[in-house]
Amino acid sequence: MRYSQYFIPTVKETPSDAEVISHQLMLRAGMIRKLAAGIYNYLPLGLRSVRKVEKIVREEMNRAGSIELLMPSVQPAELWQESKRWEQYGKELLRFKDRKDAEFCLGPTHEEVVTDIVRREIKSYRQLPLSLYQIQTKFRDEIRPRFGLMRGREFIMKDAYSFDVDGAAADISYDKMYQAYRRIFQRCGLNFRAVEADTGSIGGSSSHEFMVLADSGEDAIVSCSACEYAANVEKAEARPLPIEHAEPRPLEKIETPAKRSVEEVTAFLGIPASALVKTLLLVADGEPVAALVRGDHDLNEIKLKHLLGCEELMMADESLVQRVTGAPVGFAGPVGLSIRIVADLALQGMKNFTAGANVADMHLKNVNPGRDFTPTTFADIRNVVHGDQCPRCAAGHLEVWRGIEVGHVFKLGTKYSDALKATYLDSDGKERVVFMGCYGIGIGRTVAACVEQNYDENGIIFPIPIAPFHCVVSAVNAKDAEVMAAAEELYRTLTEMGVEVLFDDRDERPGIKFKDADLIGIPLRLVVGAKNLAEGKVELKVRKGGEVQLVPFADAAARIQTLVKEALSC
Amino acid sequence: MRYSQYFIPTVKETPSDAEVISHQLMLRAGMIRKLAAGIYNYLPLGLRSVRKVEKIVREEMNRAGSIELLMPSVQPAELWQESKRWEQYGKELLRFKDRKDAEFCLGPTHEEVVTDIVRREIKSYRQLPLSLYQIQTKFRDEIRPRFGLMRGREFIMKDAYSFDVDGAAADISYDKMYQAYRRIFQRCGLNFRAVEADTGSIGGSSSHEFMVLADSGEDAIVSCSACEYAANVEKAEARPLPIEHAEPRPLEKIETPAKRSVEEVTAFLGIPASALVKTLLLVADGEPVAALVRGDHDLNEIKLKHLLGCEELMMADESLVQRVTGAPVGFAGPVGLSIRIVADLALQGMKNFTAGANVADMHLKNVNPGRDFTPTTFADIRNVVHGDQCPRCAAGHLEVWRGIEVGHVFKLGTKYSDALKATYLDSDGKERVVFMGCYGIGIGRTVAACVEQNYDENGIIFPIPIAPFHCVVSAVNAKDAEVMAAAEELYRTLTEMGVEVLFDDRDERPGIKFKDADLIGIPLRLVVGAKNLAEGKVELKVRKGGEVQLVPFADAAARIQTLVKEALSC
Repeated sequence: MRYSQYFIPTVKETPSDAEVISHQLMLRAGMIRKLAAGIYNYLPLGLRSVRKVEKIVREEMNRAGSIELLMPSVQPAELWQESKRWEQYGKELLRFKDRKDAEFCLGPTHEEVVTDIVRREIKSYRQLPLSLYQIQTKFRDEIRPRFGLMRGREFIMKDAYSFDVDGAAADISYDKMYQAYRRIFQRCGLNFRAVEADTGSIGGSSSHEFMVLADSGEDAIVSCSACEYAANVEKAEARPLPIEHAEPRPLEKIETPAKRSVEEVTAFLGIPASALVKTLLLVADGEPVAALVRGDHDLNEIKLKHLLGCEELMMADESLVQRVTGAPVGFAGPVGLSIRIVADLALQGMKNFTAGANVADMHLKNVNPGRDFTPTTFADIRNVVHGDQCPRCAAGHLEVWRGIEVGHVFKLGTKYSDALKATYLDSDGKERVVFMGCYGIGIGRTVAACVEQNYDENGIIFPIPIAPFHCVVSAVNAKDAEVMAAAEELYRTLTEMGVEVLFDDRDERPGIKFKDADLIGIPLRLVVGAKNLAEGKVELKVRKGGEVQLVPFADAAARIQTLVKEALSC
Repeated sequence: MRYSQYFIPTVKETPSDAEVISHQLMLRAGMIRKLAAGIYNYLPLGLRSVRKVEKIVREEMNRAGSIELLMPSVQPAELWQESKRWEQYGKELLRFKDRKDAEFCLGPTHEEVVTDIVRREIKSYRQLPLSLYQIQTKFRDEIRPRFGLMRGREFIMKDAYSFDVDGAAADISYDKMYQAYRRIFQRCGLNFRAVEADTGSIGGSSSHEFMVLADSGEDAIVSCSACEYAANVEKAEARPLPIEHAEPRPLEKIETPAKRSVEEVTAFLGIPASALVKTLLLVADGEPVAALVRGDHDLNEIKLKHLLGCEELMMADESLVQRVTGAPVGFAGPVGLSIRIVADLALQGMKNFTAGANVADMHLKNVNPGRDFTPTTFADIRNVVHGDQCPRCAAGHLEVWRGIEVGHVFKLGTKYSDALKATYLDSDGKERVVFMGCYGIGIGRTVAACVEQNYDENGIIFPIPIAPFHCVVSAVNAKDAEVMAAAEELYRTLTEMGVEVLFDDRDERPGIKFKDADLIGIPLRLVVGAKNLAEGKVELKVRKGGEVQLVPFADAAARIQTLVKEALSC
């Protein structure tokens, strides 16, 4: 592609409304443009990377035996009423009426539609397993769309659905997809982790998230230093901690005037945060409950919610805290509390800790569970932290990373097939419900996550497999006929070799050309200049790392081809 | 692809709600399934053909220098208000509000969005010409969605937009697209005509439609038997007819009791329809107007509308007819009429014709324009008919065809760039408005039109370029190990050759396999049976025409490859 005949509107200044690096750089590189909040145009360069990801996804889906189809964006309310999600989904589901007042929504996902197809067409166990996928535009009316493609409202997604005779067969389908996902993100050239995750509102029994590692990631994930264990922090299991060997000391009431937070209390008393216990008051489906976690730990509300089996869980407001504890916020403690108390496992072995006294400006020292209060239950209700022992192996400890979720696989069980009555006849002629799995990849998000992981102060550093072009050929001086002829020849040769070349034939200063090439992140660059050319050489620069070498003109194309082939064969 | 591991839910019975053949056959062939009125799932087989069309379109758009991007489906109301189409578009534009009560629509077309991109990014004449396209899902809330993919509400479209410095440059861009469209439909293997067409509500100065010829086509088109002229009947120009050489005879009032229609009057009087003149009363923006056309001709309301320059044109109701003519419906005539009269050109040379007398049950004989009445104007306001002289060349006559519109190209001029202020600075630094063109192809509609043009009593007959698979390999008896091994070998060899093979490895009777292969329209078929195989032969059947021949097993794959290559190189 000739740069002069292409459309890459790069921008020098960082747009003021772009908070994260991928949003800033994709705007600056002319890859995307905002149309409305969370709704983006994919400009030519951005679309090329999107298509690269799509192609890899498609190849791996096909290889895994999934069959591509295309379902509509506009979906009738009836199907969503059958699954009960018409009521449950909330405002992210964009609903509207057509000219005949029939109710529809813009599909945020396609479980209902695909299950409808399957219940109509699948009659017998002989037709199973079946796996269907599509690459399609979805819409979710996010309350706070932001971060460019990272949290958009309209976005491109690959969604796959598996249908099996039973749970064991569904596990096999799930594993196939899991493996396909590993290959997809490997082939994209991304550094990622597959982690155990919570199933959330999609439902089902188990799930994994695929996380691209990046400091800016919205999600915290952990992995074991020794074994394969990895999980989202929401889901990661904490082991009980070792039991402290100390004699219980007498309970003491001490003054802590206006000291409420962990930081304030521990600083005032000169104790470590791990010697304090936080008493958090929450409301679970209308009932107050106290959650106890160590001062240096964070409550994991998802674990607590699962434990309580409640629909809604929120922090108690000030008046409720006052009513339940008899004290203002900041002085709650377990001793004397008459509501349900859930204590984190870490408290099982703690001795003589400090906690609120349920009296204004007072705390208790030397609190001991069993002697001073008895929790309703001990349970794993905290987020794991860096250094925690691995819940799977004895040897490793947990490391915490930041990650961006780009894929998610779910075992759905029979949630949707039950609701929509998707059944088949087994070999005995008995009617059975199909077991489902669903599997998503955010296509645009994968490109954005790639940028979050691969950039420097000059711009994007695309890995070759999903770069918009593999190589840029820059003619230093477009007015120099010899330079242009040599550059043209490289452009032609490389294109014939199957390398995707952006030929910067613009009549611009070299500085501008190099800045643009760096900004848009083309992995390989050949610079054709008069001086080097006179010696039969061109400059080859690798964007990642910035390595520059002079190579013989005659070898340049073959060198590039080799680098591209290597990168694509991973 | 192995049939046993694919998803082709064929149906024997013709679905009762499918009126046209493409709808019937695409449902029966398992290519599409209805989700809601005018909203379809593309099942795997249907999607394959859609992707083939997309690929051809993409290649030809790129070759023509158009650049692919992807614009959103959900579009903010503001842009449509700028172009005034928010008010003008009517109910086909599906409008809704998001969770924050902001107004949006589902894009039925993208002039506003693409013009918004261009006005932001294009500053200088140096950046022009620019041509952008996308392949994307659109939504139009048709009042009567029907005929499957032929008139759907959600549909896949390629839409391109060109931007130029002036009208002459825009004409060049238009011509490039016109030529690209010709190549696209040629490469799809379709019999089509490019015809001059009316620009309708899109606006602009001139346009061509690309029509796939099929007896079931909704549109009538004409082409000259001698020259290149072709047009939609809405647009096709009629020449004046030869002047009759006859002396005016005296005007006569004759009784025609209860004879109102052309058929009734001419049968009663024993005259040909061409000797009668119909007087049609219409209302143009509130004003009554009479249109005169020969009894055997049809009024072309679009031509009349253009002539009158009115916004709204409709037939007068009974009470208005009574008021204007003084007679009930069926007896209107030009003589004595005091409203505006537009006479078709064909009347210029007519002598002594018959017309209504503006008196109940009476007609006038020997009416002569000039003597008995004077039309306000003579103009071309009729549909051309088979046999009319070509308006371009002297030699040819017009032939009438039925066609299905699959593509449409428009010269837009500055309609949208004026409204949205898309300007550039010319070489003198003066601000000028860009000139636009827009160019659409219905992707799914092209597949459906292909089926309308290519089928027989057994099913679809796909041309090779857009068939879901090029070739089906049928193993007559899946239980015969030798047969299966030979079929496997053909499947593997052909696949390696780049032929897209559907390998019917199902354990089904040959009759079922052949019926399915015919129904889904795979162009080439290799049948591997024990008897022929014993003689080293397999059967090669060409779906179109049904020719069957025995070919040596060793040559079969190469034969198929040659046939496929020939078809794809057109």
